[in-house]
Amino acid sequence: MEAASWIEDGMTLGLSGFTRAGDAKAVPYALVGRSKTDPIKVNVYTGASLGSDVDKLMAEHGLVLKRLPFQADKTMRNRINKGEMLFVDQHLSHTAELIRADVLETIDYAIIEAIAITEDGLIVPTTSVGNSSIFVEKAKHVIVELNTFHPSELVGVHDIYQLGKQGERNWVPLKKVDDRIGTPGIRVDLNKIKGIVMTNQSDSPSLIAPPDEETQQIADHLIDFLRKEIASGRLTERLAPLQSGIGSVANAVLHGLLSSEFSDLEIYSEVLQDAVFDLIDAGKVRFASGCSITLSEEKANDVFNNFDKYRNQLILRPQEISNLPEIIRRLGLIAINTALEVDIYGNVNSTHVLGMNMMNGIGGSGDFARNARLSIFVTKSIAKDGKISSIVPFVSHVDHTEHDVDVIVTEQGYADLRGLAPRERAPLIIEKLAHPMYKQQLLHYYHEALAKGGHTPHLLEKAFSFHLNFVKHGTMQGKMVQMA
Amino acid sequence: MEAASWIEDGMTLGLSGFTRAGDAKAVPYALVGRSKTDPIKVNVYTGASLGSDVDKLMAEHGLVLKRLPFQADKTMRNRINKGEMLFVDQHLSHTAELIRADVLETIDYAIIEAIAITEDGLIVPTTSVGNSSIFVEKAKHVIVELNTFHPSELVGVHDIYQLGKQGERNWVPLKKVDDRIGTPGIRVDLNKIKGIVMTNQSDSPSLIAPPDEETQQIADHLIDFLRKEIASGRLTERLAPLQSGIGSVANAVLHGLLSSEFSDLEIYSEVLQDAVFDLIDAGKVRFASGCSITLSEEKANDVFNNFDKYRNQLILRPQEISNLPEIIRRLGLIAINTALEVDIYGNVNSTHVLGMNMMNGIGGSGDFARNARLSIFVTKSIAKDGKISSIVPFVSHVDHTEHDVDVIVTEQGYADLRGLAPRERAPLIIEKLAHPMYKQQLLHYYHEALAKGGHTPHLLEKAFSFHLNFVKHGTMQGKMVQMA
Repeated sequence: MEAASWIEDGMTLGLSGFTRAGDAKAVPYALVGRSKTDPIKVNVYTGASLGSDVDKLMAEHGLVLKRLPFQADKTMRNRINKGEMLFVDQHLSHTAELIRADVLETIDYAIIEAIAITEDGLIVPTTSVGNSSIFVEKAKHVIVELNTFHPSELVGVHDIYQLGKQGERNWVPLKKVDDRIGTPGIRVDLNKIKGIVMTNQSDSPSLIAPPDEETQQIADHLIDFLRKEIASGRLTERLAPLQSGIGSVANAVLHGLLSSEFSDLEIYSEVLQDAVFDLIDAGKVRFASGCSITLSEEKANDVFNNFDKYRNQLILRPQEISNLPEIIRRLGLIAINTALEVDIYGNVNSTHVLGMNMMNGIGGSGDFARNARLSIFVTKSIAKDGKISSIVPFVSHVDHTEHDVDVIVTEQGYADLRGLAPRERAPLIIEKLAHPMYKQQLLHYYHEALAKGGHTPHLLEKAFSFHLNFVKHGTMQGKMVQMA
Repeated sequence: MEAASWIEDGMTLGLSGFTRAGDAKAVPYALVGRSKTDPIKVNVYTGASLGSDVDKLMAEHGLVLKRLPFQADKTMRNRINKGEMLFVDQHLSHTAELIRADVLETIDYAIIEAIAITEDGLIVPTTSVGNSSIFVEKAKHVIVELNTFHPSELVGVHDIYQLGKQGERNWVPLKKVDDRIGTPGIRVDLNKIKGIVMTNQSDSPSLIAPPDEETQQIADHLIDFLRKEIASGRLTERLAPLQSGIGSVANAVLHGLLSSEFSDLEIYSEVLQDAVFDLIDAGKVRFASGCSITLSEEKANDVFNNFDKYRNQLILRPQEISNLPEIIRRLGLIAINTALEVDIYGNVNSTHVLGMNMMNGIGGSGDFARNARLSIFVTKSIAKDGKISSIVPFVSHVDHTEHDVDVIVTEQGYADLRGLAPRERAPLIIEKLAHPMYKQQLLHYYHEALAKGGHTPHLLEKAFSFHLNFVKHGTMQGKMVQMA
């Protein structure tokens, strides 16, 4: 394809796409094809993860110099962890600011999937907005992939609000999840459009696992907690606008609200997964604002074949608006995100296996956790048949500090950490959240640390003993590894 | 004093005071006196640290059940670290939200130092605002300490803007550092005022050390960096509104701007220390917005005896407005905060010595670092005559993750980490920031970790080897402690 030939070695591309939705497909494929005979390397910026195996193929063919701000592909992850390509893991609300301020590399080509381009210069995105508006604004050239697969009823769902430069901008005039404050498409200087490519290809379906017994228990505990908040007068049965992170556990937890008494709910989130539409179908959710729509194949068929039914209850926004601290705090969101591991003081690792190997990235979890009314993290208490405890003495990587974590929920129960000092948090976390097979081992660590004192008692020589047990013996269980 | 007798065991007090400025003095003293014969325990909430030895005396007399959100007193710190009292270390912008939402204990008495109470029900604070406005709004009773020591010209300097509840509030209509958006005092229901106590007592002077050779070198490196930003077109010589953290190093760095070519500067910070007024005196700073004025004895005499000279260039705001993510991001601050230690990937520990013992608290550093245009951390590369390296393989406590740290400066140089992947950051941090006596040891760790791979290469079994060396041998120098 001609468009792929315009791209030169060392250039920086801004691709549309957020959590497998609305990604540019044709030009990246053509670029992969070209690279087989004409190897080049480029920087690839996106909204979040891509679908259509684009990250996989680009990684396989060694196309990527530097990738940001998020990915979720196994092949790419392996190359990142081997040091064969660079990855910058960013808060999803930060990337646009860095591009706007000319801190990152200048974007040579913005490659944007669209459902339409209007005569007056609006590019209407498809199933995600991501960082596309800042890519279009700052890129030297724009290539549009006009994808006829998506339903035309998507037109009018987007609300594109462009922030000005820091120091020169206004407040963002959004007070309710359904406020429309921008334009239905991305304003573009038509002279910047170097090419338009026609495509007809669906997004990749989401990969989330269905709810299981443990995720249902997590949802039940979360609902218990929310009921106590209502009983205390801090919430009503309408709760507060909900954010739910990417992934199976967070989706399953949201799904659990289907059988709750809560009603007239609102969503102000990044990705709108199956559970959001199930809740709309059930009449539980009155409005959902997000940055992308990422659905399983079955749900996608339902939703996009009947999109008229949903379009008045949806807005898709740029990710710096869906994830903006200003709005998250103003609206007072209830944020539900997934932890990889948590420690006995409530610090959360969302990204790094054994402190070293990247899974996907922090995504928007930091934007939400820091600024939400209620910052909730969910995780199963064990993984790999109990060989791994998700509750550890000291997390091997910190993405969210104890300051930003209000409530943690596992299938064992919930721990409400608000207003608690470290010495109050640790016993509660161990009691309420840890799996019975790890409780004694955690208590042993805590009591030994406690004897040494400190505001946050720790034994640095044994802080990673769980992880080191796993590396040496294939399980975190066992006595604590001692220093020489 | 009668007022102290109203306070009952188990009550929660909200005291005015932020970094030794504008703290309630008489009632806490009377309470300490009473506790000698009538022991009671209370929860103590403040803006930030107190002066006048109030924290010291309360700690000595075992008066405090739970203290939040910040303290900086040696005696209190010792009791906290021994587990003899509880301390909750919070982002300084978060406390008011938790009180407003009825998450923390209900405040029985707000005890507020004031310079005046107006007939129409405004309490005019003295040298700090801190959390006083939310304390007054939510407390059952209010006691006012009318302190005649402070200059009456302080009236009119404050700008009290009260946020509504989350989900019901408006945007905060502040676009420039000198915008006035509120009232000159704290609105109070006069029926809630249970007593007024007359006092005449100065604030405690600040305890900051004067600039030294290393802090001057840090300032010089920072100025170099800022010059490069100007050369690149990302900043002008007016820079951007500056925030500078509490403490000697940050104050010295700001002081270093005196000899720079930058002019027409603006400050949007928490505490306004000596350096801010030196910069105003030198005609470098045109306006300063803060939450408190904390000065050395000498500077305080200068400033408060000539306050007319300054009052049109100053605003004092509640700490949730000085530290609000919404405003920090809108204005695009340059945030300069102090690190206790940083690791080779750019994570920052601001609070915990050896991961266990609390120094002061995270304060507002998280509010600023996460949301600033430029998040800068400063520290000397070594402490205790080189026995401690401030650059370590893995910080023993994480207050700021790599995502929130743009630039780190030591007396050795600066490292600009923006847009860099972990494997780019580590060599740069070691090369530019570490003291020569620790460079080889850090490189050795990094290269051994690199051989094992990972997005963020680490050796969990040696991650705390620097800290363990220090515990065992009194210095971080030496070979890495090995696991058994």
